[in-house]
Amino acid sequence: VELTLAQIAEIVKGECSGAPETTIRGVAKIGEADPGTISFLANTKYYHLYGSTGASCVLVPPDFEETGATPVIKVENPYFAFVTLIKLFHPPQKLVPPGVHRTAIVGKGTTLGEDVAIGPYVVIGDNCRIGRGTVIASLCTMEEGVSLGEECLIYSQVVLRHGVQIGSRVVLHSGVVVGSDGFGFAQEKGVYHKIPQVGTVVIEDDVEIGANSTIDRATLGETRIKKGVKLDNLIQVAHNCVIGENTVMAAQTGLSGSTIIGRGVRVGGQVGFAGHMEVGDNAVITAQSGISKSVEAGEIVSGSPAGPHRRNMRIEAAVRRLPELLKEIKRLKEKIERLEQS
Amino acid sequence: VELTLAQIAEIVKGECSGAPETTIRGVAKIGEADPGTISFLANTKYYHLYGSTGASCVLVPPDFEETGATPVIKVENPYFAFVTLIKLFHPPQKLVPPGVHRTAIVGKGTTLGEDVAIGPYVVIGDNCRIGRGTVIASLCTMEEGVSLGEECLIYSQVVLRHGVQIGSRVVLHSGVVVGSDGFGFAQEKGVYHKIPQVGTVVIEDDVEIGANSTIDRATLGETRIKKGVKLDNLIQVAHNCVIGENTVMAAQTGLSGSTIIGRGVRVGGQVGFAGHMEVGDNAVITAQSGISKSVEAGEIVSGSPAGPHRRNMRIEAAVRRLPELLKEIKRLKEKIERLEQS
Amino acid sequence: VELTLAQIAEIVKGECSGAPETTIRGVAKIGEADPGTISFLANTKYYHLYGSTGASCVLVPPDFEETGATPVIKVENPYFAFVTLIKLFHPPQKLVPPGVHRTAIVGKGTTLGEDVAIGPYVVIGDNCRIGRGTVIASLCTMEEGVSLGEECLIYSQVVLRHGVQIGSRVVLHSGVVVGSDGFGFAQEKGVYHKIPQVGTVVIEDDVEIGANSTIDRATLGETRIKKGVKLDNLIQVAHNCVIGENTVMAAQTGLSGSTIIGRGVRVGGQVGFAGHMEVGDNAVITAQSGISKSVEAGEIVSGSPAGPHRRNMRIEAAVRRLPELLKEIKRLKEKIERLEQS
Repeated sequence: VELTLAQIAEIVKGECSGAPETTIRGVAKIGEADPGTISFLANTKYYHLYGSTGASCVLVPPDFEETGATPVIKVENPYFAFVTLIKLFHPPQKLVPPGVHRTAIVGKGTTLGEDVAIGPYVVIGDNCRIGRGTVIASLCTMEEGVSLGEECLIYSQVVLRHGVQIGSRVVLHSGVVVGSDGFGFAQEKGVYHKIPQVGTVVIEDDVEIGANSTIDRATLGETRIKKGVKLDNLIQVAHNCVIGENTVMAAQTGLSGSTIIGRGVRVGGQVGFAGHMEVGDNAVITAQSGISKSVEAGEIVSGSPAGPHRRNMRIEAAVRRLPELLKEIKRLKEKIERLEQS
Repeated sequence: VELTLAQIAEIVKGECSGAPETTIRGVAKIGEADPGTISFLANTKYYHLYGSTGASCVLVPPDFEETGATPVIKVENPYFAFVTLIKLFHPPQKLVPPGVHRTAIVGKGTTLGEDVAIGPYVVIGDNCRIGRGTVIASLCTMEEGVSLGEECLIYSQVVLRHGVQIGSRVVLHSGVVVGSDGFGFAQEKGVYHKIPQVGTVVIEDDVEIGANSTIDRATLGETRIKKGVKLDNLIQVAHNCVIGENTVMAAQTGLSGSTIIGRGVRVGGQVGFAGHMEVGDNAVITAQSGISKSVEAGEIVSGSPAGPHRRNMRIEAAVRRLPELLKEIKRLKEKIERLEQS
Repeated sequence: VELTLAQIAEIVKGECSGAPETTIRGVAKIGEADPGTISFLANTKYYHLYGSTGASCVLVPPDFEETGATPVIKVENPYFAFVTLIKLFHPPQKLVPPGVHRTAIVGKGTTLGEDVAIGPYVVIGDNCRIGRGTVIASLCTMEEGVSLGEECLIYSQVVLRHGVQIGSRVVLHSGVVVGSDGFGFAQEKGVYHKIPQVGTVVIEDDVEIGANSTIDRATLGETRIKKGVKLDNLIQVAHNCVIGENTVMAAQTGLSGSTIIGRGVRVGGQVGFAGHMEVGDNAVITAQSGISKSVEAGEIVSGSPAGPHRRNMRIEAAVRRLPELLKEIKRLKEKIERLEQS
């Protein structure tokens, strides 16, 4: 793909200071850009890189002072404009050609929407439903009765266990398992007996789930991941959890059974949720926290066991002073003894 | 499946207060139950939901006071009775039809027991042994010399590396890898050389392992998971570990090499074991603990590094008072100075 | 394989005290050895096992005092000698016979080096390059444009996403995903929009990556794992990370985006890196640490948030004394009050 600065300025609705016929062949970060690429500056922290960038043009905010030789395009939100250009210069890979690969196995009663693409060695059970434009890459398994909406992107080696329901525009990365049994056992005299896990999983529209994450089916009822949720890699979602709309979670976080998380929540990596508790809307949970009791809407928590983040910061600062404090107390004790003796 | 209350009362050996011919078509949790379903109450904490449940019948303990309109069945252990009913109303999915799918590849010298079911695109190496009634779902790999007992359930996309030995009634969820190389390298002048991992993995009867968990083979000898162990998703078991009978572990827990865990141990999620240490029988390890030294039988430990749970709770309570304590000490110091001056 | 003690002594360049014609059929750990095996002692901690070992010979250091009946071979580095013997007695499994399995699908323009072995149901896209002697086991996926060097070992069910570049002698264990999308979203009015992840992953020579680990592609540019790095199972490496030469990481550790790690770094299990920070060469990071800011070369850090390990040990010791300290302070306070009254 090649575009002129004039074309780019029109696409991003910006004002260009450079020669309009300059040709751009790609996008790059400001510090790694070669001639022929376009970059961006959004954060003043990186403005100092402007003078030395190799880029042929830089997307900048309206108030940016163009002090160097590199042409700029002034635009309201340089980062969003840059993302738009990434998409133009990197049209998505064609994972799988349209149609059903000759080696794919499709069960009875399964319906395929228009423009569905199913890759080699995919195994699809009976009575599934695959919506228009959905792509299923190689070596995936869909058990019986799975429903997939429109324009989903299911990467290689995903497993969808029986009956799970997936919305539209859902992206599941390689190795994701949806609908594995919840971890439910009843103990009797020291031996554990399996509790059948007969619920399901519902994943709503516009959800993305990272590689090798696991989403367990409910014991009864459903595990539900709501519209717009984004989960990173290697995340565990246990039976009967609910994750609210537009909540995001970083890698290796784990939810125990029946954790109920609100909408717009931001969760760091390696966080653990103890289960049977609720996290309010728009809460923020920092990395490696251990959430053992419910969190209020909008609250910022950290630590394990987690508490209010501000309080936690004060406690941590105090803890770091503790060895010094022990000495201080010893000194005070000696002074008191001297006072007592006098 | 449809059953009358009379039939259900007979199955669970309970006493029914409702019309015996009432028809039940499913099971549900007390708070989510619709007419036509049966639910249960075992914990007094949830008794208040009895008045408003939509269920057509509730399994309750013998001393439950039937104060509302909904019929009950009194039974010794309502939860176990309920689990029995789950199984009746939800007979297990037929994952794979009996026999060997035409696309499965089975190596030379491999023996298949009666009623074995092997799904599409399964790859089985030479000299394996698969016991009676075992089911292997689609896209699994068994390398050479693997032994699988009777009535195992191997979900799609499990990998069993060469020579691993699996007992009977073992359940391995999708994405499980058994027998991957232990993490063993010898360092010489800053460069790491692989130590061949030539041991194996033995998984005894009635073990269940959750999705995407990994069980490494021993360097020499064996990694052993004993009878009745239940492991959740995304768990790491390193080379030469031994996990005792009926021990359970929640998701994302990790064992370093040569961790020896006793029987009946309960381990929370995201726990880390430092390796080359032992955990005694029936110990309890709370979520996110870091176990760096051996744990006594029956001990309850928490924290990272872990210590006795009771002591840990006292320490945590003290830590939360620390910022306030700093102020207190400052006040004492001032008082002492005043006393010294007077 | 059978070797005499004379042959073994010659192979490991050691001095043998036993009958040279004694036959050895295998290797074993000192405490688990049967007659006919050879074992080793390197750590004085285990010397007491010499008297009772069942082994027919023990590799020992030059200064070892042969006090028992079991013959020894004295050798400069008994452990390295033992590793050499492991390899001799356990020649590597032939994972896949040479050639391309009839069920493997190989795309257009893909080139295969000499002695390549590709297993059943492997799916390889267009324009890939697979170097001499590389083995790809069953049910792997390589998308378009992947490059694999010489003598790599790719175990079953690995996914290599489009365009990733893998060096020579790289070992990828089952379930590894290389080149999945980085976790990048731009938030606008509470809704997250995907930032296309158009960079790649470069894995240099002699890297080994454990089962079910995930390595994300860069947003722009590359995620790079340098020569000789060894990663354990279930590790997450986010977009744009760089891991320096000969760095090792234990299981379940996670790197957030743009974490830059030096060479020769040793990282314990379940460590989290907050991203956009650097770790200097030869640093040591203990298990379960949370690295939220940069770490100096050679530094040893622990804790979450992490600090210098020595300081951390002092703090932890002080924290354990905290409940007792609270009582002490209460006593001091009472004494001061008495002093004030007098």
